[in-house]
Amino acid sequence: MTEDRADAEVLARKCADVMWADDNASRRLGMHLEAVGPGAATLSMTVTDAMTNGHGDTHGGYIFTLADSAFAFACNGYNQRTVAQHCSITYIIPSALGDRLTATAEEVSRQGRNGIYDVRVTNQRGETVAEFRGHSRTVKGTHLPEATEEVR
Amino acid sequence: MTEDRADAEVLARKCADVMWADDNASRRLGMHLEAVGPGAATLSMTVTDAMTNGHGDTHGGYIFTLADSAFAFACNGYNQRTVAQHCSITYIIPSALGDRLTATAEEVSRQGRNGIYDVRVTNQRGETVAEFRGHSRTVKGTHLPEATEEVR
Amino acid sequence: MTEDRADAEVLARKCADVMWADDNASRRLGMHLEAVGPGAATLSMTVTDAMTNGHGDTHGGYIFTLADSAFAFACNGYNQRTVAQHCSITYIIPSALGDRLTATAEEVSRQGRNGIYDVRVTNQRGETVAEFRGHSRTVKGTHLPEATEEVR
Amino acid sequence: MTEDRADAEVLARKCADVMWADDNASRRLGMHLEAVGPGAATLSMTVTDAMTNGHGDTHGGYIFTLADSAFAFACNGYNQRTVAQHCSITYIIPSALGDRLTATAEEVSRQGRNGIYDVRVTNQRGETVAEFRGHSRTVKGTHLPEATEEVR
Repeated sequence: MTEDRADAEVLARKCADVMWADDNASRRLGMHLEAVGPGAATLSMTVTDAMTNGHGDTHGGYIFTLADSAFAFACNGYNQRTVAQHCSITYIIPSALGDRLTATAEEVSRQGRNGIYDVRVTNQRGETVAEFRGHSRTVKGTHLPEATEEVR
Repeated sequence: MTEDRADAEVLARKCADVMWADDNASRRLGMHLEAVGPGAATLSMTVTDAMTNGHGDTHGGYIFTLADSAFAFACNGYNQRTVAQHCSITYIIPSALGDRLTATAEEVSRQGRNGIYDVRVTNQRGETVAEFRGHSRTVKGTHLPEATEEVR
Repeated sequence: MTEDRADAEVLARKCADVMWADDNASRRLGMHLEAVGPGAATLSMTVTDAMTNGHGDTHGGYIFTLADSAFAFACNGYNQRTVAQHCSITYIIPSALGDRLTATAEEVSRQGRNGIYDVRVTNQRGETVAEFRGHSRTVKGTHLPEATEEVR
Repeated sequence: MTEDRADAEVLARKCADVMWADDNASRRLGMHLEAVGPGAATLSMTVTDAMTNGHGDTHGGYIFTLADSAFAFACNGYNQRTVAQHCSITYIIPSALGDRLTATAEEVSRQGRNGIYDVRVTNQRGETVAEFRGHSRTVKGTHLPEATEEVR
């Protein structure tokens, strides 16, 4: 690993720590931040009774929420506040109560203030439950105020 | 209102009642089913502390979940079990703790087993928070077993 | 029609005239600009042999292109240069050689520099062939240089 | 390469040859089929004057059309007729007259009759012009009638 790469990894981790401390939504759903790096993040979550819908399956909203959190951690690791503009999700197989879901986000493109991130959601058997694509946009502000001048 | 239309309204309401009774996810989030009809549904929800994210705003996943529930009630009102295939959401303005969000779903297209539904999410000031488009697919099964033969 | 509305109609028409004069792609495909207004545009096109694909149907790319042109005219009528960021299309029924397709674009949302436009593509029998949703972003520049200061 | 893999490569090539012979749209636009395999295809095309739009750039419809053709060849290589259901495209940097565009399609998911394919469109400098995601659905029919029983 080059020094630049190591610095980028450290920066992404620091940004994630700041975000995580403040992220009620992800924490209260029992999400676990498995890994984070520049443009990448992996989060996992167990499907609870509160997440099931009228068809007996996991409500698609919770699968989306897990993927969306992975997307958020992946695109915010450059210490530039970055928000979601547009996201899409395709449901591939159902998920059910007790499933352990893992969302893995990878950067597809970053150009100017715009980014594209793909997130695959898998279950405990390694089957793909959903494919998510998120479009991000960098806005004003940083996660680590003191480091701003070094980072840009 | 024609008799057919009235029947369709009653059927949509009955399907919604069956779904709602079983929909842990929507009920536990405090969603309220404001209205439902053939191809249409309106749900509302207040943003709680558990729904806020690392930027101090409503986690996009909960805005999506509200829209997704409205979509589900709208597309399931014909007494044919119908699931989400692909959904997209565009975030327009942020939403915050305490906002009262309303998701209004309308049918754009229904052709064979495929449907398209648009959902607008607004806040208590009538501002549009997000636009959602859901693609549905009818699968085997009905919500009201006894009515199957009359409905098809 | 109020005076403001009439002015907006005239402005949209003038922008469309400037764009049309320069729009090789739309003209060479035989598109016809049926109507244009603030946030709205209708274009039509006949499917030629050159537009058919390997399945004997209209290549989806040409259906998209017609919809994309309608989207472009709809979102550029405010005399602010506006470009496509992200577009999606859902194919509903096939189209074939000789079909007369009409794309009708309507504004769903305009907030800051971002817009959402829905385009329905129908055939000569009024059947919906495709539903398109376009996301636009306003960039620097105007279509009518002399009018810039009055328009903003 | 295993024998199965070699057979899959041959089958994808044969399907592509049948499709290509019939694909007026792609051929008349000067597309070149660079490579094809199971779930993958690469096509290239030079931007001509007829493809430029009112902003002096390549009309987004032609970028989409190139990507859509790559998607079609990628998802039809299993000798099952497969059609597009829903496609989305994100424009990243502009393209202009004379650019040599290359669309590379890869399979993301194939589950039952549904598939997801990502297509990256790059220019002659290797810059990414657009990212496309296509959703396919297998329908009745094959490209190579005689081989049907062996293939399934």
